[in-house]
Amino acid sequence: MNKSWVLHKRPSGYPKLEDFKLVESRQPELLEGEILIESKFLSLDPYMRGRMNDTKSYAPSVKLGDVMTGEAVGKVIKSRNRKIKEGYFVNAHIGWQEYGKIDGNLARIIDPDLAPISTSLGVLGMPGLTAYFGLLNICKPLPGDTVVVSAASGAVGGIVGQIAKIMGCKVIGIAGSEQKIDYCSSELNFDYVINYKKENVINKILEYAPHGVDVYFDNVGGEISDAIISNIAIGGRIAICGQISLYNLEEASMGPRMGGTLLINQASMQGFLVFQFKSQYQDGLIRLSEWVKNGSLEYKEDIIDGIENAPKAFIGMMNGNNFGKLLIRLDN
Amino acid sequence: MNKSWVLHKRPSGYPKLEDFKLVESRQPELLEGEILIESKFLSLDPYMRGRMNDTKSYAPSVKLGDVMTGEAVGKVIKSRNRKIKEGYFVNAHIGWQEYGKIDGNLARIIDPDLAPISTSLGVLGMPGLTAYFGLLNICKPLPGDTVVVSAASGAVGGIVGQIAKIMGCKVIGIAGSEQKIDYCSSELNFDYVINYKKENVINKILEYAPHGVDVYFDNVGGEISDAIISNIAIGGRIAICGQISLYNLEEASMGPRMGGTLLINQASMQGFLVFQFKSQYQDGLIRLSEWVKNGSLEYKEDIIDGIENAPKAFIGMMNGNNFGKLLIRLDN
Repeated sequence: MNKSWVLHKRPSGYPKLEDFKLVESRQPELLEGEILIESKFLSLDPYMRGRMNDTKSYAPSVKLGDVMTGEAVGKVIKSRNRKIKEGYFVNAHIGWQEYGKIDGNLARIIDPDLAPISTSLGVLGMPGLTAYFGLLNICKPLPGDTVVVSAASGAVGGIVGQIAKIMGCKVIGIAGSEQKIDYCSSELNFDYVINYKKENVINKILEYAPHGVDVYFDNVGGEISDAIISNIAIGGRIAICGQISLYNLEEASMGPRMGGTLLINQASMQGFLVFQFKSQYQDGLIRLSEWVKNGSLEYKEDIIDGIENAPKAFIGMMNGNNFGKLLIRLDN
Repeated sequence: MNKSWVLHKRPSGYPKLEDFKLVESRQPELLEGEILIESKFLSLDPYMRGRMNDTKSYAPSVKLGDVMTGEAVGKVIKSRNRKIKEGYFVNAHIGWQEYGKIDGNLARIIDPDLAPISTSLGVLGMPGLTAYFGLLNICKPLPGDTVVVSAASGAVGGIVGQIAKIMGCKVIGIAGSEQKIDYCSSELNFDYVINYKKENVINKILEYAPHGVDVYFDNVGGEISDAIISNIAIGGRIAICGQISLYNLEEASMGPRMGGTLLINQASMQGFLVFQFKSQYQDGLIRLSEWVKNGSLEYKEDIIDGIENAPKAFIGMMNGNNFGKLLIRLDN
């Protein structure tokens, strides 16, 4: 049998446990070319909140009653695909469930001897590539630049800040707990970290970035971003990667209009999705792997055991309670 | 004697006549290298409102009692500069006055036989170059793109829309009177023009740009821009050239935060100043002149006679009352 979390109701505002439903079904039959994956880790990511809405976005919504969308890594236990053998480990978009089938051509084969398989959902997967291409291709940091990253201890933010350090930048992180601040300072060696729950972000940015913010990698949106963007330097670059502070709002979020600030500073603000850089993924993964191997890139996983806990962990992440890349480990 | 308009008080909100003062002084003495210019036309431009404030911006404020800043075109009546002879016509930043001196190296020599000298303040000057580089270098339009320009009949907007037509784009202008709408449709051949004072901008944009707005050249900011940006297409480019709706506000202008829109559409928003493209001015002027000569670029001048009328004309422009490039003609 196969346990799956399906979307039961469309949340208004923050998702609640009742919005999800755990269903049991038989393991699916395979068509020619397909594989059956026994999940070992499910990825939980902020973007999934958007898929729960019935509004136009860059990807289709999850339909009511459908399995929650998402990436997982696991073992191939049946295969009707000539390239993928039983016993292989693969990463694929099979959603929040124990067993999932997919066209083998849509799965990425993972070598479990190179790195723990869970990293294919984090530093050596979508979050790592998001950090890599968003920072390097959108923000184009130069040595000496002041780089600010919000959600700084998160799956993407932590990698952004470390790549900025590798690039020779001054890094200011924004995070929401003492534990996260300590981690960014002590483990990731960010130059400064601001606790947005306790400190005045504008004042701290003025103090830590007296010449303005050259690069802002935005994972959160809202008031934190207002404070940082209002201190953008001349020629500053802002990458919009996520807006977690806005995903659960029921009305449009209002804030100061930024046109004038962008104008007088000749600054730019660009939204991006990692898929834009698909043709360069292989290059990104090679470099990220090297940095992990030579110790210049650390990563943190926040592992919760048991598929039963997926909605609770996801809701916690929406409230900033996770710490590092959030994963659900299955005891398959 | 020399009549000059000086900044008398710093305006709060919209400037008033009392904020300016007309003073008389002797014609200045020249130092080695300097020239004395007898102005024929003064340029009045929205950016001057910013210079009247005592706040940090990309250029220094006008000090109280100093001559209002601005470009003029006129005849050299005295010269201590070897390269610039008496009788030459030049364009220079000498401000709102009848006679002004300047280091000759900061003046641009104008050939009065090539085009009317007033065009050096408009289509073949700063507004033309702003339109040219802002549209081509920041927005990078492609044939078939839908381009929206606000303040569409203005000194910059009119040229933006016409260059977009030359590029093979569909052009939607935004303007505020029937006369301006007629001009954009009949003279400039824009595909659609929206009267923001009478029509619902969001509905009209949805009607005229059903696949979204690929390029938005923003001269105004505020609610009009909110409406257009909320309909940006995937991969859309927004150039922030001016924010005239915000220049006279006494408090920060609040509107919907745009991060989420930019993110899901992988769109970018970039502030720019024409000075960024200084090294390419010559190229731009050559192309603009060719287009004017071959009739593919029209321009409209709004000429007011008499230096006495400069503040009144400037205040009128802040309220959208000018129609085309606003110039003060002196009877020197």
